Amino acid sequence: MSSSTPLRFTILGTGALGGFYGSRLLLGGATVRFIAHSDVDWIRAQGLRVDSPLGDRLHHPVEVYADSDPIPPSDVVCIGLKTTRNARLPELLAPLVGEGTVILNWQNGLTLEDELAARFPQAVVIAGLCFLCSNKVGPGHIVHLDYGRVSLAALDERGVDWLPRLQAAFGAGGIETDVQPSLSAARWRKLAWNIPFNGLSVLLDRNTDAIMADPEARALAERLMHEVAEGAAACGVPFDPDFIPKLLATTERMAPYAPSMRLDFLGKRALEIEYMYRRPLREAAVQGVRMPGVETIASQLSILDRANRGV
Amino acid sequence: MSSSTPLRFTILGTGALGGFYGSRLLLGGATVRFIAHSDVDWIRAQGLRVDSPLGDRLHHPVEVYADSDPIPPSDVVCIGLKTTRNARLPELLAPLVGEGTVILNWQNGLTLEDELAARFPQAVVIAGLCFLCSNKVGPGHIVHLDYGRVSLAALDERGVDWLPRLQAAFGAGGIETDVQPSLSAARWRKLAWNIPFNGLSVLLDRNTDAIMADPEARALAERLMHEVAEGAAACGVPFDPDFIPKLLATTERMAPYAPSMRLDFLGKRALEIEYMYRRPLREAAVQGVRMPGVETIASQLSILDRANRGV
Repeated sequence: MSSSTPLRFTILGTGALGGFYGSRLLLGGATVRFIAHSDVDWIRAQGLRVDSPLGDRLHHPVEVYADSDPIPPSDVVCIGLKTTRNARLPELLAPLVGEGTVILNWQNGLTLEDELAARFPQAVVIAGLCFLCSNKVGPGHIVHLDYGRVSLAALDERGVDWLPRLQAAFGAGGIETDVQPSLSAARWRKLAWNIPFNGLSVLLDRNTDAIMADPEARALAERLMHEVAEGAAACGVPFDPDFIPKLLATTERMAPYAPSMRLDFLGKRALEIEYMYRRPLREAAVQGVRMPGVETIASQLSILDRANRGV
Repeated sequence: MSSSTPLRFTILGTGALGGFYGSRLLLGGATVRFIAHSDVDWIRAQGLRVDSPLGDRLHHPVEVYADSDPIPPSDVVCIGLKTTRNARLPELLAPLVGEGTVILNWQNGLTLEDELAARFPQAVVIAGLCFLCSNKVGPGHIVHLDYGRVSLAALDERGVDWLPRLQAAFGAGGIETDVQPSLSAARWRKLAWNIPFNGLSVLLDRNTDAIMADPEARALAERLMHEVAEGAAACGVPFDPDFIPKLLATTERMAPYAPSMRLDFLGKRALEIEYMYRRPLREAAVQGVRMPGVETIASQLSILDRANRGV
């Protein structure tokens, strides 16, 4: 296939992430197949609606599937599921991944790409770190609020040639991208935000703006960021000295925002604790570094999550 | 005064603590004057009611005062206020403390006795660590649920001679006592329980039995205990190796119990964060030791406390 042929995407999960980016890729001229779960019939009948400051869209008809088996081969399989459903991931991916298929992983957390590469050695694994405010508000209905940039980082050199082609496909749909030279550094930098703000938004029962507005809550978020920085450094990817101050300043400028973990908690859905907290704790521990504040909030989240869902 | 003359007590605060122990001291034959706040008129008119497995009691009339000024001199002034009211403590104590007056401090936390000794050098300062389940359920009405032992520890040698006399006065009222050779060690050992269980009972919204029944919550409590152990060791009072396992085992055998901080939170009262968390953190930090998990839950408690009270 020439590098100018439109790419074919399969998107696993038609939620806030998959629904939004799938819509933008469609608008950019790519072929896009969606896998949906509860609302597959709705989307087939009524279409996929995406409200966005970039323009509201109703896609109808949409190529949507309830399962992976019947989907024709794609160039790129995007993972837009919650990590809480990762037990089913290998089984869902298996029919979709052939020799040289790109797996573009949108999930949050650490060690995901290594696990994908170990399970699918024939695939080209690339991380796509999403900086996106988007919610699913009903069947086949996504509301995009703000942001949307995707940072791309290849797991190994096999992905490098794919990066400009992915950038082109996203760019054609109006999505900004950048390329990160180190996947591990990009993941840890994203965790430096996700770990404090996802966790504290649940534990303190408030959105990011209210965390930033309270000096004690902001200081707690900052202390947790510094622990993540120690974990990152132990794993070989130290932060720049101005990274944390910049991250705090950016958060301060953000519109009031409910992190996904808070929405999951309020919706009584399982929290993404394993990949966002347990794996970073484990990776740092392997290097002999503990993150005791992170450990403390991770345990609290896990305990409250189970109580919240009555399990 | 001979050592067989009944002791005269003034009790600052007629709550769950002061009301209960005052009642027992009265029954043991001591002279007891109470200082009450909101329910002073009720107690004067209706008496002080204490329901207890040791026997229900209505004391009427009771020597009760709204302020310190008019109270005749006592041998022992007991502090049964919440530490959240400590800003008023020097002013309340001043008229009560003469040369050689014993200040028996029932409050939880660290550095309290040093502050009292600094403010009242003429006083004999003794810590009375209370192992008590007791609630105030209404005006002049205390319900004692379980336990009640008081561990006595003199701040300096001036208090040593007083310890048997205090033990006798409490014992006459049916209260078990013991004498602890090191005030600092006794305080840190009590913190090893109070820090995890008070904080987690608020943050996890559950009583001690539910914390102990959940392996992850129990493990979190245990990790916090080990941090307190590091703080204690840094302050010169290392725990015995079997102290933490024994403390957990004791907690497991306890009846379901709502720690005072949980009751305060549910009642939208200020939490005792300063002396129970901030001071231990500060004392350990002075010795170069951080307790990052304790720090994390202390900040959360402080943030939630303010939100809870709308301040």
